[in-house]
Amino acid sequence: MYRSLPLLAMSGKRFSVAYRLHGLPGPREARTRAHEIALEQTVELSDDLLEPGLIRHQVVGRVEALEAASIGVFDVVISYPIEAMGGEFPQFLNVLFGNSSIKPDIRVEYVALPECLFSCFKGPRFGVQGLRDRLQVKNRPLLCAALKPMGLSAEELAERAFQFALGGIDLIKDDHGLADQPFARFEDRISRCVEAVEKANRQTGRRAMYLANVSLPIATLWERLRFAKRAGVGGFLVSPGLIGLETMRQIAHDDSLGLPLLMHPALLGPYVLGARQGLSHYVLFGQLARLIGADGSIFPSYGGRFSFTQEECGQIARGCRDPMGPFRPIFPVAGGGLGLNNIPDIVRFYGRDTILLVGGGLYRQQTDLISSARYLHELVSA
Amino acid sequence: MYRSLPLLAMSGKRFSVAYRLHGLPGPREARTRAHEIALEQTVELSDDLLEPGLIRHQVVGRVEALEAASIGVFDVVISYPIEAMGGEFPQFLNVLFGNSSIKPDIRVEYVALPECLFSCFKGPRFGVQGLRDRLQVKNRPLLCAALKPMGLSAEELAERAFQFALGGIDLIKDDHGLADQPFARFEDRISRCVEAVEKANRQTGRRAMYLANVSLPIATLWERLRFAKRAGVGGFLVSPGLIGLETMRQIAHDDSLGLPLLMHPALLGPYVLGARQGLSHYVLFGQLARLIGADGSIFPSYGGRFSFTQEECGQIARGCRDPMGPFRPIFPVAGGGLGLNNIPDIVRFYGRDTILLVGGGLYRQQTDLISSARYLHELVSA
Repeated sequence: MYRSLPLLAMSGKRFSVAYRLHGLPGPREARTRAHEIALEQTVELSDDLLEPGLIRHQVVGRVEALEAASIGVFDVVISYPIEAMGGEFPQFLNVLFGNSSIKPDIRVEYVALPECLFSCFKGPRFGVQGLRDRLQVKNRPLLCAALKPMGLSAEELAERAFQFALGGIDLIKDDHGLADQPFARFEDRISRCVEAVEKANRQTGRRAMYLANVSLPIATLWERLRFAKRAGVGGFLVSPGLIGLETMRQIAHDDSLGLPLLMHPALLGPYVLGARQGLSHYVLFGQLARLIGADGSIFPSYGGRFSFTQEECGQIARGCRDPMGPFRPIFPVAGGGLGLNNIPDIVRFYGRDTILLVGGGLYRQQTDLISSARYLHELVSA
Repeated sequence: MYRSLPLLAMSGKRFSVAYRLHGLPGPREARTRAHEIALEQTVELSDDLLEPGLIRHQVVGRVEALEAASIGVFDVVISYPIEAMGGEFPQFLNVLFGNSSIKPDIRVEYVALPECLFSCFKGPRFGVQGLRDRLQVKNRPLLCAALKPMGLSAEELAERAFQFALGGIDLIKDDHGLADQPFARFEDRISRCVEAVEKANRQTGRRAMYLANVSLPIATLWERLRFAKRAGVGGFLVSPGLIGLETMRQIAHDDSLGLPLLMHPALLGPYVLGARQGLSHYVLFGQLARLIGADGSIFPSYGGRFSFTQEECGQIARGCRDPMGPFRPIFPVAGGGLGLNNIPDIVRFYGRDTILLVGGGLYRQQTDLISSARYLHELVSA
């Protein structure tokens, strides 16, 4: 049915995706399912509608490996020609999982990119070492605290930022729910919080950073990013679930900004919650976080008020650190309601190249915020 | 622990969200869970850390209703002050479900907005009647076909567009996987497909439209949208899973573009696949689609190669059409592998204000594309 005009020369370069397939009686059905994915993610036509020819052989995904993982569960690796995503990140996401994300019992477990795509996507600008250099903190886990609750004035939030910085917190971030509400307008909050942290730094001699939440409407986003950069923020907090993975990638990519980014998981939960569908914790909070330029990936750790298991959290930490071409390793940022009494165990589990995000836990101490922060600082310096 | 400085005057206006909670032993636990959500989605502090005062009473979500749906399952309605989202869509998404999306057993079932938010978010620019007016098709279901497969040249894709338009297809859209690949570059494809559909329209006297896929990198997106607009496309195909819900909303909002939009579900599957988590089909494909300005919401219908049930598809159609303040009703766009033999049943189920998206089904006929399209056209005109 199709004329098969000669295709452009293909580079022969491919990227690969490991999917886990569930609920299959045997290897024959697994192979059929795998081939359906290879078609769905590229040409979106069933096999019988594709003429023999170049498109079938060069564009359709190729099943590279298939093996049983357990009863009814198969791991399959499918490779795609890089031409299928045309060097663009939204289309990379689409080839990775666009339509197949709508089918049950398929989960993306791992992505392997060829060298050429690593230059296409810049990845983390700072990573673990870059962020340590900026903060001048060599060996211990980093400490992060959140400014909250929504409803406080910019002045009150800045006062908390000052106290956290004075007590030894390295990264003081807006709660991801602080945007441009009437309680504390964006520009006012940014200016005051930057000033407060700088004032504390002059007293302590440290280099604590204030990270501004920039999960804001596209129409005003770049103007506000530039405002925050000029005001002197240390970095940005971005929720790609709220403004788009591609938008976060573009913020990371923008050399005129050039500041560290923390990724926040707001609205991303459904991608990982279903064990037989969506994306693995490794891919979402590790590999994709690095692809879109996060220097730290916030997730709700075991030991808090969320449900991720220790095994899932370990996956995230590996996804942040495993070799990934020239991409820098980034910080897993363990948060989600950690109490101060959990900290020693959490540090043992994740190791020193971790950011501990303590929100309510610092407010929970019976002392003032400066003393709570100091207590936490001593805990991790020990 | 907080000073409670006087808050800004609150408008008293609120929006409400109905959540379904699963796996709860009784109403007492359901009430506790509901209150946790009200806190998580606003102040992100547990109850014991909030001073009595204005924030607790004015900012925290309020549990408005709670009732048992079945054993272990409860429906709860929580209202939030509009000030919590500060008039911005990303923060609206965050208050709706940001952190709670990461917790199992909570599903968003329904959103109710006050009048003031309907002016804040413009909603669908055309809707059912606007799109019918543009196409000058009064009573029958509309027909949509997809240009594919990836790998064809721009010239070959344009030839297919011509044939579809000649055969009576109303909306000829790029496959959502066509971006700017070397096989068929964006600008070349857009120009040729516009021209092909115009040529067919001159022959038929109809007003078929070509819809360009614009799920493209942010850096070049507006430039390419303007290019496509100048070239004369009839509308745009947007995958908010690939470029962000907020980015699609901004495209819809932009008066300088002002063309119909179809929303494509690529990478959105995990939001609805888990029955006890994520978003209901009604909310994602109906209410949110309208909030971000879709004039038609594409989903994989029962009767194709995907797994949505007839009940879920019915929910989507209702979400597209139910009264929603001043927002226009939009078209449910039933796709996902419909065969031509399913069409009569599909039309009976969804009714005439539906778009039938037939992709492979048109290619599957043993005749040429013009005849396949004519056959489909006759089928729905009957």
